[in-house]
Amino acid sequence: MIVEGQAQRTIWVDRDGWSVNIIDQTRLPHRFEVVTLRTLEQAAHAIQAMLVRGAPLIGATAAYGVCLAMRQDFGDAALGNACDRLLSTRPTAVNLRWAIDEMLAALYTVPKAGRVEAAYARAAEIADADVETCRQIGVHGLPLIEQAAAVHPGRAVNILTHCNAGWLATVDWGTATAPIYMAHEAGIPVHVWVDETRPRNQGASLTAWELGQHGVPHTLIADNAGGHLMQHGLVDLCIVGTDRTTATGDVANKIGTYLKALAATDNGVPFYVALPSTTIDWRLENGFDIPIEQRSGEELSHVTGRTKWGESVTVRITPKETPVRNDAFDVTPARLVSGLITERGVAEASREGLVALFPEHG
Amino acid sequence: MIVEGQAQRTIWVDRDGWSVNIIDQTRLPHRFEVVTLRTLEQAAHAIQAMLVRGAPLIGATAAYGVCLAMRQDFGDAALGNACDRLLSTRPTAVNLRWAIDEMLAALYTVPKAGRVEAAYARAAEIADADVETCRQIGVHGLPLIEQAAAVHPGRAVNILTHCNAGWLATVDWGTATAPIYMAHEAGIPVHVWVDETRPRNQGASLTAWELGQHGVPHTLIADNAGGHLMQHGLVDLCIVGTDRTTATGDVANKIGTYLKALAATDNGVPFYVALPSTTIDWRLENGFDIPIEQRSGEELSHVTGRTKWGESVTVRITPKETPVRNDAFDVTPARLVSGLITERGVAEASREGLVALFPEHG
Repeated sequence: MIVEGQAQRTIWVDRDGWSVNIIDQTRLPHRFEVVTLRTLEQAAHAIQAMLVRGAPLIGATAAYGVCLAMRQDFGDAALGNACDRLLSTRPTAVNLRWAIDEMLAALYTVPKAGRVEAAYARAAEIADADVETCRQIGVHGLPLIEQAAAVHPGRAVNILTHCNAGWLATVDWGTATAPIYMAHEAGIPVHVWVDETRPRNQGASLTAWELGQHGVPHTLIADNAGGHLMQHGLVDLCIVGTDRTTATGDVANKIGTYLKALAATDNGVPFYVALPSTTIDWRLENGFDIPIEQRSGEELSHVTGRTKWGESVTVRITPKETPVRNDAFDVTPARLVSGLITERGVAEASREGLVALFPEHG
Repeated sequence: MIVEGQAQRTIWVDRDGWSVNIIDQTRLPHRFEVVTLRTLEQAAHAIQAMLVRGAPLIGATAAYGVCLAMRQDFGDAALGNACDRLLSTRPTAVNLRWAIDEMLAALYTVPKAGRVEAAYARAAEIADADVETCRQIGVHGLPLIEQAAAVHPGRAVNILTHCNAGWLATVDWGTATAPIYMAHEAGIPVHVWVDETRPRNQGASLTAWELGQHGVPHTLIADNAGGHLMQHGLVDLCIVGTDRTTATGDVANKIGTYLKALAATDNGVPFYVALPSTTIDWRLENGFDIPIEQRSGEELSHVTGRTKWGESVTVRITPKETPVRNDAFDVTPARLVSGLITERGVAEASREGLVALFPEHG
């Protein structure tokens, strides 16, 4: 999407034809800084230290990490080591494993001398496929926004989102944001309520930034505020992303998603979840079987931001000895989900709904 | 309650017999600092700049502000001016108006020479009455915790609370915390989930501090996390405070309360609201008629805390140009409230339930 007036992806091959550029997302929203990756180790670090985050972008970065490794040494041992190193960065990210498997499948059968070229070709396909998947999510989600616009002619459609399921989490378009960007470009007036998304503040730092750069009207709110806005008719629909979806349509997403789904249901506000089908775990029947990552309490007790002099500073907001619990995700049961927006269409949040779109998993 | 091992109220007359001590709550949790008020203007500033906050404590501080004014000039004009000045500090706080009216009623008929003494006597009564009201809320709320303890012998009762309805918001005991302190002192094992309470972080800075000082086990969580904990059976009951309650049992409380009430209902967790009956607005039938204060967006875009060197620093966590909306309260409909814990007992959240306890309003 647009940054400082220029079309931008989150990852791209440099003009030199081989090194890989990414946006250092740990610097956002205060600085837009492009980092160039030239070695496997730099790619692994970018994933591990969360310079890049979001399942699809992690996958694409890992794919290019394999390319960089092949430039250094295209032997079988080096390929295996590169994949192991990349897999160790974020062991629970599903797309990371998928992307590595894709690269391995593409490279093992190729003569060693052709591996560098084959690696860049497959990595580019993975990145382009992600863009196309997200674009299709946008195409299928757009009518939901068009319908809301038709109900309220003359005013913007108010869409609430949680966390960052934006283009920064993918290669381009985003998942939850794809229908929003598409509506904006189609001239449908939209306005996005951006949940701050404590404790890591991805809404305040990433979603607010990317919508602002692209020119999409939006307003930041506390995570606490969404229910109140829905009670007052100020939310027309919710669209969020997901980290893992069961075969029955339960959705694991950033902590707090469940509370918004409850409020949406209580107020008759449609609640949609946007996802590439690669996030569906077809083996799982019950969302409560999805393991929930526990993260450091410092994410809650400490906050990093900029002083008015532009300095990056971390401050503690709690008493020193306060114990903290920090669950990263929660599960929204399918009964609270109005629909799943996938690259093949909008499915009912149920096994029947999903299998109708993805009969190969029936 | 206890601070640094000593019993403590939030407001008390100094050993000199006339100046008034308060805790500067803007310094918490990082510093416990007592401020001495010696003039009307200092009292007014303490309320306005939120050195003291919480409806009951604001009322008590205003009462003592009248005392300090009478020491300077006990004439009728000075009395009227003092009341006007104090009322102007937080025009929407209901208890402020009530305390000022009490002081006026107590002083107008008193010979001028006796006004200083009469003022201190009435202010002390107001403060003591608040302590007794909160203690009674504790007495009536305690059986709810005892019942939960009986259901789960051998483990702590997990109680979730939002914002600070603790002793820092009152003269002592607090409202939502009174039953918790009473259970703790009765030897019933309790553990409190403390909502951070964005955007002003009253949970992280005040509730966590006061529970820690008193020795009540507690854990800070993001506002987003409560629903997830309830889904996993980790919350036995919720107790929150209220800023205004309708005659029909609708409750206006800190933004985000409604989301927790929805989650409690969805998971069969009892959801109680603790309140002195002075917060009941007997004229109101519908919670959505309660005006909701809109506060500065900077409360959300900027965070103040301590650096590791102990310095107090404010940082911005959003892009500079991000628009922010900051509603301070939301309304929880009576249908989501299991009961109202008042100084006269636990009422059903309905007109019938409230009138049964307060027949004078029938």
